[in-house]
Amino acid sequence: MSTKWLDLPAKPIDQAMLAAAWDRESQLTKPPGSLGCLEAIAVRLAAMQGTQQPGLERVRITVFAADHGIADEGVSAFPQAVTGQMIANFAHGGAAISVLAHQLGASLEVVDVGSKADCAAMPGVIVSKAGAGTANFRHQPAMRESQLASALQTGRDAVARAVKDGAQLFIGGEMGIANTSAASAVACALLGVSASAMVGPGTGLDQAGVAHKAKVIDEALALHQPALTSPLQILRHVGGFEIAALCGAYVSSAQAGLPVLVDGFIASSAALLALRIRPDAADWLFFGHASAEPGYVHLMQALNARPLVNLDMRLGEGSGAAVALPILRLAAALHGQMATFAEAGVSAGSDLKP
Amino acid sequence: MSTKWLDLPAKPIDQAMLAAAWDRESQLTKPPGSLGCLEAIAVRLAAMQGTQQPGLERVRITVFAADHGIADEGVSAFPQAVTGQMIANFAHGGAAISVLAHQLGASLEVVDVGSKADCAAMPGVIVSKAGAGTANFRHQPAMRESQLASALQTGRDAVARAVKDGAQLFIGGEMGIANTSAASAVACALLGVSASAMVGPGTGLDQAGVAHKAKVIDEALALHQPALTSPLQILRHVGGFEIAALCGAYVSSAQAGLPVLVDGFIASSAALLALRIRPDAADWLFFGHASAEPGYVHLMQALNARPLVNLDMRLGEGSGAAVALPILRLAAALHGQMATFAEAGVSAGSDLKP
Repeated sequence: MSTKWLDLPAKPIDQAMLAAAWDRESQLTKPPGSLGCLEAIAVRLAAMQGTQQPGLERVRITVFAADHGIADEGVSAFPQAVTGQMIANFAHGGAAISVLAHQLGASLEVVDVGSKADCAAMPGVIVSKAGAGTANFRHQPAMRESQLASALQTGRDAVARAVKDGAQLFIGGEMGIANTSAASAVACALLGVSASAMVGPGTGLDQAGVAHKAKVIDEALALHQPALTSPLQILRHVGGFEIAALCGAYVSSAQAGLPVLVDGFIASSAALLALRIRPDAADWLFFGHASAEPGYVHLMQALNARPLVNLDMRLGEGSGAAVALPILRLAAALHGQMATFAEAGVSAGSDLKP
Repeated sequence: MSTKWLDLPAKPIDQAMLAAAWDRESQLTKPPGSLGCLEAIAVRLAAMQGTQQPGLERVRITVFAADHGIADEGVSAFPQAVTGQMIANFAHGGAAISVLAHQLGASLEVVDVGSKADCAAMPGVIVSKAGAGTANFRHQPAMRESQLASALQTGRDAVARAVKDGAQLFIGGEMGIANTSAASAVACALLGVSASAMVGPGTGLDQAGVAHKAKVIDEALALHQPALTSPLQILRHVGGFEIAALCGAYVSSAQAGLPVLVDGFIASSAALLALRIRPDAADWLFFGHASAEPGYVHLMQALNARPLVNLDMRLGEGSGAAVALPILRLAAALHGQMATFAEAGVSAGSDLKP
């Protein structure tokens, strides 16, 4: 399996529509700028979709689940068996992202990209394993080259299915006990920041647990340092299968011209990987929910991005992006459906002096 | 018309359900606290509605529109005629709140509580005028006692209609050229803060315009100071009809046990009035969207509240609350529909040591 497809360029957004959409924003019956962030969101969506009536009715949420050898180091508050249990919970509709997808009318896919669980018998779970969990990256590279390529391709395949099904937006979620450790290690290596400045409680560690996690990651980064020569090698040595799948999905979405709503900390580490591989993918990414992980601020600075909401969520699964989705939908509707000053016979304030 | 009904207590929320709902939150298949603010929102909704399956399908949005004598002082970037033009735009479905209500499946009411426009012929507009605009409060009280009582009652009537129609949540919006000046004056008087610390650009003033607005408000507050002896007298002397209607609606919602989602700066000044009149109404209020008006931070401190989102919106109309509504809906759905650890056969992390 090759990773050559990562070299293909992102689809350019429609620059003429971008300008036309800003022009329309200035004519809508509201003071200029008064819809705040919603205006730039709508204009970007118009330029992505090439229409003044952008729409996000059809949304695909794909949750990538995988296990992590680094869990052996005691870096998570949950036992590794929870990964497989949660895959079953996603499939049965009981997890947070299941409920959110249902409420939002979004289609939900669950992909086992490398858990230790046997998910073949779980109805609705797509099994595309790069391995039965990564190796413990405190002692060896998390994955082999072939596993990296497989996990990236699994993300690409998910986007291909989304495009085929007519999706207008892609949300990638993740589940994997210990995956904040892998995501933190990736972010540390990409940004040149030590783990103590990056690492937080994940989904439930106490202070001693956080310090232990930072120590494990710093030791692993020191071990692999000579080999961390590119984004892909960072991903291979200290990443995870679901992080690779998200990275592949984001690159592939940009290549296909499918807008993306990025979730929290782990998804954002995958997004930074994607943009280090393909900087031109940046135009296609929105960021949904801020993370309380200390490293998140560093990621947002590096990504030059601002998340839409901060509701103190720290669950993953794509849940933060899902909660932010209605904001994108409402922004699109306002742009396409509000009356212009001329249509409504309203005096435009910007022409007048108080 | 009497304001005696303001003395009736707010409905108590269901304390037993509050405790039961927190217990259920701890059993759902997620790390404890990982849904952040959504957990407290859902628990409050459960206690308000007395059920572990709270729902917000039926939402009433009522926009109260009115004119302001203080507009004569040049405190707005828009001419006063825009109030009436926007009432027509609401009714025709072209305004931001019209589009949002439609997208959200919320029913929208437009109430002329005191504009200078003749709205009798506008289909769908409820005319309940306390006057043809307030008096210019730089020189005289904004309204007479009877007008205050009428505007408060208009808000109460709107809530009565919402309750009759089976609404599960009330959103109040406002439209009125120069109404940030009235709201700022109310907030200054309630909080004992000078206008220069409170006043901002509203929907479009430049720096000189903001300074002029602050000066106008400070002069008005000095003029009326001896009479500003109660929340109601503050509202009467320097408030506005739509602010009074919102205040009446909030008090009335709490009395009826109807949850409220408060919009931005102007709505929050009305909410502070409501809570100074009836502190026990606090349990029934959610706050939707942060305002960039400098005074907003003071209001939130006094209200001990935190808005759900900050998307740099500054439009009013109830639009910020509308954009935040899906967060409440999703919080309610997660609480009612997620599986428990026992139901899903997932190991609960809080029982385990890493």
